[in-house]
Amino acid sequence: MPRKVITGFSNPTVKFVRSLREKKHRRQERRFLAEGLRLLTDARESGRLPELLLMVQGREEHPLLTELEHAVEAAGGEVIELPLDLLAKVTGKDNPQAVAGVFAEWDTGLARLDRNAAPLWLVAQAMRDPGNLGTMLRTADAVGAGGLILLDDCVDPFSVEAVRASMGALFTVGLAQARWADFDHWLRQGEGQLVAASLREAQPYRGAPYAAPCFVMVGNESRGLPEDYEMACDLRVTMPMKGRADSLNAAVAAAVLAYEVLAKLDG
Amino acid sequence: MPRKVITGFSNPTVKFVRSLREKKHRRQERRFLAEGLRLLTDARESGRLPELLLMVQGREEHPLLTELEHAVEAAGGEVIELPLDLLAKVTGKDNPQAVAGVFAEWDTGLARLDRNAAPLWLVAQAMRDPGNLGTMLRTADAVGAGGLILLDDCVDPFSVEAVRASMGALFTVGLAQARWADFDHWLRQGEGQLVAASLREAQPYRGAPYAAPCFVMVGNESRGLPEDYEMACDLRVTMPMKGRADSLNAAVAAAVLAYEVLAKLDG
Repeated sequence: MPRKVITGFSNPTVKFVRSLREKKHRRQERRFLAEGLRLLTDARESGRLPELLLMVQGREEHPLLTELEHAVEAAGGEVIELPLDLLAKVTGKDNPQAVAGVFAEWDTGLARLDRNAAPLWLVAQAMRDPGNLGTMLRTADAVGAGGLILLDDCVDPFSVEAVRASMGALFTVGLAQARWADFDHWLRQGEGQLVAASLREAQPYRGAPYAAPCFVMVGNESRGLPEDYEMACDLRVTMPMKGRADSLNAAVAAAVLAYEVLAKLDG
Repeated sequence: MPRKVITGFSNPTVKFVRSLREKKHRRQERRFLAEGLRLLTDARESGRLPELLLMVQGREEHPLLTELEHAVEAAGGEVIELPLDLLAKVTGKDNPQAVAGVFAEWDTGLARLDRNAAPLWLVAQAMRDPGNLGTMLRTADAVGAGGLILLDDCVDPFSVEAVRASMGALFTVGLAQARWADFDHWLRQGEGQLVAASLREAQPYRGAPYAAPCFVMVGNESRGLPEDYEMACDLRVTMPMKGRADSLNAAVAAAVLAYEVLAKLDG
């Protein structure tokens, strides 16, 4: 099937895709950009196909790329080809990958979550670093969490940086976004144990009475969790801090805690 | 004491400090740049003072800043003042902190390490992301590790990004840099258990027979550890991976493993 080929920087499709690097435009269009064959294959295998597939001209054949192309076409999506330098400008990388896709965002409302679908969930509050957010998504995938719930003003999980850092976990892990009050309300309408690492009235994290569905919550990278969020937890636990500084990276703390909960709930 | 004031962008000191943002110049000068009152206070409390202290003009008084100034002067260091826009250009941040310092790098040879000084050590091989390296330093601090040993071609721990991500742990945690062959040789000259997360002939990470001094090693973010490094380990352990992807962020994997080792060696 002949491909649509774009060669000019002023092409409206190029402008549209470039605009998705900005949050404002992602919000407006409800679309986001993901790059790389591995990421797009993870997406496809998780049932997410791009509406628009951008492929570099003169690329080498690859069976996964062929599969991706066919899947996008079969689903009624558009496939276009463009020169390497133009793709680099679109994705904003000096060293662009051979393929990128524009995806429709999906519903990230709390109402979509089934809390009993998994024993463990991760919750991040006001997490600002896209690398940390991507890391949390990978951890959620690894521990088999039901999903990652983002509270308050987190960095956009659909930003190019967060998508990249998630190494595909954005497509495999359930994702919800909510304000604290709405999450608290939702949580208390059913079973669910909210757990945070804390120094306030906390017990040692090893051997603490974790119970499914267990929601492991960490706070902002600099400020941690607001005190009232901590006090609303069912369980506050403390991890050894033997050094001079008294803090772990937030995504690291979440992972150490999540693996402990997993061991207790699985064992 | 009257301060030396710099107002011009072409001043040699400004050029020198700016040059330290590049690895080539850091290697040549054996100096690096760190920013922010908190970081510089952590350094001071760990016995590291900048040779050159840069302070913004018209800053607000702060007791920790005054202490820092006095300590730098007492140690024979230089203190200079400069306008905010110039400090921003020096440090390359839109939102510069009120203070920055130029430090002499220190010896990071293996010979300086006393393996019996701590039950636990972290080892990172070919870690490329400065955020991950800073996170590893924070983890090393939190678990009370003897230090972090960087193998092969890791990102420069004295880069502005790694220093920032370490949140001060660069100054509190022992640091060594070596090639694999030299590390392996050093390790085998005394006691020491080398442990890696692996899928090769591995046992579950929980309840594995960890022994002090235990060296927890993780590999490059994309490629993991070379196979021969894994096979040289005394213990290979596996962590549950319940998701579709089969990898954790390297710094996260190191932390989960390190906390498990800590619990076993402390308990």
